[in-house]
Amino acid sequence: MADQRFQLYDTTLRDGTQQEGMVLTVEDKLAVARHLDAFGVGFIEGGWPGAVPKDTEFFRRAAHEIQLHNAQLAAFGATRKPGAMVSSDPQVRALLAAGTPVVTIVAKSHPRHVELALRTTLAENLAMIGSTVRFLVHAGRRVFVDAEHYFDGYRLNREYALEVVRIAADAGAEAVVLCDTNGGGLPDRIGAVVDDTRTATGARLGIHCHDDSGCAVANTLAAVDAGADHVQGTAHGYGERCGNADLFTVTANLLLQRGLEVISLEQLREMTLSAGSIAELTGIPVRAAAPYVGAGAFTHKAGLHASALRVDPGLYQHVDPALVGNAMHTLVSDLGGRSSVELKARELGYDVEAGSEPVARAAARIKDLETRGYSFESADASFELLLREELQGAVGGPPECPFDVETWRVGVDRRPGGGTRTQASVRLRVDGVPLSAAGEGNGPVNALDRALHTALDPFFPELAALEVVDYQVRVLPGSAVAGDGSGAAARVLVTFSDGRRRWGTVGVDENTVAASWRALLDAVRYVLLSGARTGGEDRRARPTAAVAD
Amino acid sequence: MADQRFQLYDTTLRDGTQQEGMVLTVEDKLAVARHLDAFGVGFIEGGWPGAVPKDTEFFRRAAHEIQLHNAQLAAFGATRKPGAMVSSDPQVRALLAAGTPVVTIVAKSHPRHVELALRTTLAENLAMIGSTVRFLVHAGRRVFVDAEHYFDGYRLNREYALEVVRIAADAGAEAVVLCDTNGGGLPDRIGAVVDDTRTATGARLGIHCHDDSGCAVANTLAAVDAGADHVQGTAHGYGERCGNADLFTVTANLLLQRGLEVISLEQLREMTLSAGSIAELTGIPVRAAAPYVGAGAFTHKAGLHASALRVDPGLYQHVDPALVGNAMHTLVSDLGGRSSVELKARELGYDVEAGSEPVARAAARIKDLETRGYSFESADASFELLLREELQGAVGGPPECPFDVETWRVGVDRRPGGGTRTQASVRLRVDGVPLSAAGEGNGPVNALDRALHTALDPFFPELAALEVVDYQVRVLPGSAVAGDGSGAAARVLVTFSDGRRRWGTVGVDENTVAASWRALLDAVRYVLLSGARTGGEDRRARPTAAVAD
Repeated sequence: MADQRFQLYDTTLRDGTQQEGMVLTVEDKLAVARHLDAFGVGFIEGGWPGAVPKDTEFFRRAAHEIQLHNAQLAAFGATRKPGAMVSSDPQVRALLAAGTPVVTIVAKSHPRHVELALRTTLAENLAMIGSTVRFLVHAGRRVFVDAEHYFDGYRLNREYALEVVRIAADAGAEAVVLCDTNGGGLPDRIGAVVDDTRTATGARLGIHCHDDSGCAVANTLAAVDAGADHVQGTAHGYGERCGNADLFTVTANLLLQRGLEVISLEQLREMTLSAGSIAELTGIPVRAAAPYVGAGAFTHKAGLHASALRVDPGLYQHVDPALVGNAMHTLVSDLGGRSSVELKARELGYDVEAGSEPVARAAARIKDLETRGYSFESADASFELLLREELQGAVGGPPECPFDVETWRVGVDRRPGGGTRTQASVRLRVDGVPLSAAGEGNGPVNALDRALHTALDPFFPELAALEVVDYQVRVLPGSAVAGDGSGAAARVLVTFSDGRRRWGTVGVDENTVAASWRALLDAVRYVLLSGARTGGEDRRARPTAAVAD
Repeated sequence: MADQRFQLYDTTLRDGTQQEGMVLTVEDKLAVARHLDAFGVGFIEGGWPGAVPKDTEFFRRAAHEIQLHNAQLAAFGATRKPGAMVSSDPQVRALLAAGTPVVTIVAKSHPRHVELALRTTLAENLAMIGSTVRFLVHAGRRVFVDAEHYFDGYRLNREYALEVVRIAADAGAEAVVLCDTNGGGLPDRIGAVVDDTRTATGARLGIHCHDDSGCAVANTLAAVDAGADHVQGTAHGYGERCGNADLFTVTANLLLQRGLEVISLEQLREMTLSAGSIAELTGIPVRAAAPYVGAGAFTHKAGLHASALRVDPGLYQHVDPALVGNAMHTLVSDLGGRSSVELKARELGYDVEAGSEPVARAAARIKDLETRGYSFESADASFELLLREELQGAVGGPPECPFDVETWRVGVDRRPGGGTRTQASVRLRVDGVPLSAAGEGNGPVNALDRALHTALDPFFPELAALEVVDYQVRVLPGSAVAGDGSGAAARVLVTFSDGRRRWGTVGVDENTVAASWRALLDAVRYVLLSGARTGGEDRRARPTAAVAD
């Protein structure tokens, strides 16, 4: 059971959306909120109703369309306008109209910001904070106050900053959240200011950090150590400039290293899944190096470690990856050599030895392909195909790929008056019999994929579920995307799914479409060989009407 | 002048290359070393000679091919084998053969690692450390000792960990580097252990952190605060799993926040440039959110801030970006609205007001395009074209685009027996006169780009220097790369250069090639209109032999 007093407050949907390149629809925001709730945060800040039309809409729909189990929704806004009545301030009224149990208002705590941004007096700013909080509390809301630019303001005028906290707390704010808005803080100072503020005001304090000096997570922990028990952050540290404190990293650190059960251990075990689901909605891939939840967070490449890793993985990991729903992986690369190939092969279920001939041959081929631009680190399926080719004979071996490719072509036409059409055709031989097929799509990769399906699905029904879910084109350094003739090369990584699991393949070629084709073909081969491997018998169907020419 | 005593030790070329996806050639490593030296580090760890053939080659070539101004090269290796003579240990001899002034050896300081990974006794491990250090010092090397798994070892057996430090220092190691190898440390504990170790041993200490709990930078600073004056890290925090401490962030924090002049202020002003150059060599783009050196580190999106930003940018930045060679940027997005459009327009040199009609129209169009998948945040040139269309009339206006597109097509053919050919053709009207041209390339984007050049360069010589230097295809969330019919859309961002500067354009379309075409066309239009804008008169050439049909 999670600690009920500690407040984990997520602002992905408000401060997180300030990140460059992040554009969320209302649908996206509703779905992210569901994942955040499942993850276990206590509060979900949904946006600024009134100021941002999309956020008004979010709160309107959230009331009916999402059922929250852990979290309460918070509407974010500002204090009333200078010199105005709070009860008739349209911005404040929009906060109430959002109908959330919680309202969080931003308050200036830095004298220069009061003067230059609000264009009012220090005294009126205090009055604005007090009256806005009282009004919202009187209307039945739980109120948090974000003290913006607190740490910079405190440096300039400690007394005024403290007074902002006192006024907010006295007016009924449940917690006053000290914000390192410009993100330049370091842990020692953040901790000292939180400590002094707590002692001087007695208020319940929260912390809101940004990562401009690369210390948002450490600053958040320092504030908690100094007595803050309300923590703000965002999924994946999304946010303006260098981002906010990463709530996944903060949560895991608090739970596993400080023993603060801010979410339950069951929820923590779903963290990597929650993180991945949210990233799919924002369209921003999870950094492989993201602490705890990154695909590479427990991934080992070093040859130096590979042999010892087999003895006791726990010696090489700061926590058990299962605690956060992640897993250990090993990489195949020129640094790891045979030990890495063995480890990876064992991870995939092959019983091989680093000293064996097939492993040595696979390691040598990988080394050679890597010098030509291949990378197998994100292409497990291409790695496994290569490994099985080398194991052939040694373990009974996979069947040969049951078809050959003769030619293929793609055409993209822009028609006069608009509209674009992409057609692909492939010419294969299945068991020696020639076969042609065509496909249309929304681009060359898609059209080739369709043509392959048209040709092969009747023979190999297991291919029908195979779907391209993502692909990346990487122009290799030193190559000529614009045709400078320097031996241009592109690497294409394709992610496939059969509806149950995902895997990746890689293709490299001087031609970007040919590189994609190689990766597509590896995916088809992988599914056919895996089917043969797991199915035991020949699962190939024999359609009566083939598309053969 | 940089502080001569403080040691900034870079291990990008050794520990950094453990990162997933990083494959550096010897050429790359030599070039990275030159940039690190210019950046101002005191030591460059080049690799493990003997163990990794590429690294042996690196040291051989580095001796002749690079002239270092600030740094000394360090060869990395391990202590001698258990039970063997150090003088005849081939691994140790390879370290000497590298001919570097500095040798850094890794030593186990964790009892379980000694037993399981080295398979020797605790006493023999100490003897290995002592004899290896003495041997290298006797051979005239400056020696550093990386005490691996130090913080975990210290927790298990403080006395043994301290003994490792004492033995290494007594044998002549210049500094003993305490390594948080598994990266789970938090600043308070790192600081406390460094402090205790310094007091107990009197040795000069270094620090080497990993980012598995998201605190590598803060941990490094905590160690420095506790007395370590040798800091290890990597460019961009490259490294295994979650990476190493980011040496750029650490350096800027030490200099700007701790007043430790570990490099000179002149070198700091080149940091963003150094960081970009190194990223180009590794092929791993700099994260936009990277502290100090990221393209987004000083980028403002918030509408909340946009108006106050005009008054005093310093209130919204923790340091002046010029100090680290970066710059403030503003983004155009639905969150910013008119104020953002005005700010961005002013950044580009247009004298406009947020309240004006053209700005309102531009903001509305941007909002609409963003809902259809466009993003202008990385596409300054497309933004400027849109803005100028709205300003037309108001400021005299740009000329109309001097050509129309009728149709285009691309074909990609895989020939029997191998080899891929991509051909594109375009049909335009220049001043009403029809014109066809063709081009070949290494993929659809390249071939279309060539065809456009063939058609237009004779009329517009300013296009000749225009070159595509990079492009990204982004499959939009909810779209159908695999053709699920849900209104598939791809966003293509194209980066162009005219040899002097770079800019970006954006294209969105259901078809990936058509999206690329839109971005290509924006680039051409941008160059033509900019030429007209800056040149004043009509710079169009009149070729005598056009490729018109």
